[in-house]
Amino acid sequence: MTLDHARLHAAQALDLARRAAALGEVPVGAIVVHQGRVVGQGHNQPRALHDPTAHAEIMAIRAACIALGTDRLTGCELWVTLEPCAMCAGAIAHARIARLYYAASDPKGGAVEHGPRLFHQPTVLHKPEVYAGVGESEAAALLKEFFARRR
Amino acid sequence: MTLDHARLHAAQALDLARRAAALGEVPVGAIVVHQGRVVGQGHNQPRALHDPTAHAEIMAIRAACIALGTDRLTGCELWVTLEPCAMCAGAIAHARIARLYYAASDPKGGAVEHGPRLFHQPTVLHKPEVYAGVGESEAAALLKEFFARRR
Repeated sequence: MTLDHARLHAAQALDLARRAAALGEVPVGAIVVHQGRVVGQGHNQPRALHDPTAHAEIMAIRAACIALGTDRLTGCELWVTLEPCAMCAGAIAHARIARLYYAASDPKGGAVEHGPRLFHQPTVLHKPEVYAGVGESEAAALLKEFFARRR
Repeated sequence: MTLDHARLHAAQALDLARRAAALGEVPVGAIVVHQGRVVGQGHNQPRALHDPTAHAEIMAIRAACIALGTDRLTGCELWVTLEPCAMCAGAIAHARIARLYYAASDPKGGAVEHGPRLFHQPTVLHKPEVYAGVGESEAAALLKEFFARRR
C-alpha cells in the first residue's frame, strides 16, 4: 500500500459519496478492493431502493461477493467515507474483510470507535485491521454541507 | 396480541428456519408482521446467494420494505427464531421495527441480550420493544440438530 494507492481509493469512495448526495441520499460511499482492484462499490441509497439496509458498505460488500462468487471477502479491503454503523460493522465481520479504511468519524452513529465499538467486543467473530482518517476532511465536509442544506 | 397469534407467528418463522435447513443453510427464519398480516419473510441464505448479509432478518425486512414501498417499518413486528446478531439488530433499528420477538438466545453471536447489547447502547437510534423466548425450544432444537449433523 503506497500513499498514492491510499489517496486513489479514498478518492474513489468519495466520488461515490458525491453520487449519493446528488441523488438526495446521505453522502457516504464505499468500495471493496481485492489485490489492488475495485471489485465492488456502493453508496447510500435506502430511500431510492426502499431498503433501510442499503448503506454504502452493504452495497459494496454485496456487489463484491457477487463479482467474486463467494460470501467471504477474505483478503479484501473496504474503503468507506464514514465510520461504519453497527449494522455495517457486523456485515464487515460476516464478510471477513481483512482491512477497513474509513475517512470521517461518526460519534453519533459509528460503531467502530464509538458506541458499541463492535470490533472490541469479545464475541465478535472476525476483527479487521482498522485505519481511520484517510481523506477525512473532504468526507466530513461533504456530510456537513449535505446536512446544512437539509435544514 | 393473543396467545394464538403469538403461536402462529412463531410457527411461521420456524417453518422458514426449516426451509433454510433443507437448503443446507443455518436454520434461522424471520417474518415481518404489519397489522396482523405477514408482509415480509426470509430465511438464512448467505451461501446460496453469495451474500454475507443474507440473514433471515435482513431478507424479511428488505421484502417487507419493498411490499410496503417504504424504508421505515414503523408499527411493524419482526419475529425471528434466533437472537439477532449486531448486523441484524442494527438493521432492525434502521428499519424502526416497533416490536422484536425472538425465540432462541444466542450467547455466542447474539447482540440483543448478549455481546454489545445493541438496544441498550446510548447511541442506538431506535429501540424496539423486545420479547424473547416465544417458541424457543423448537427453534433451539432445530439449530442444535443442524450443527450436530455438520460435525
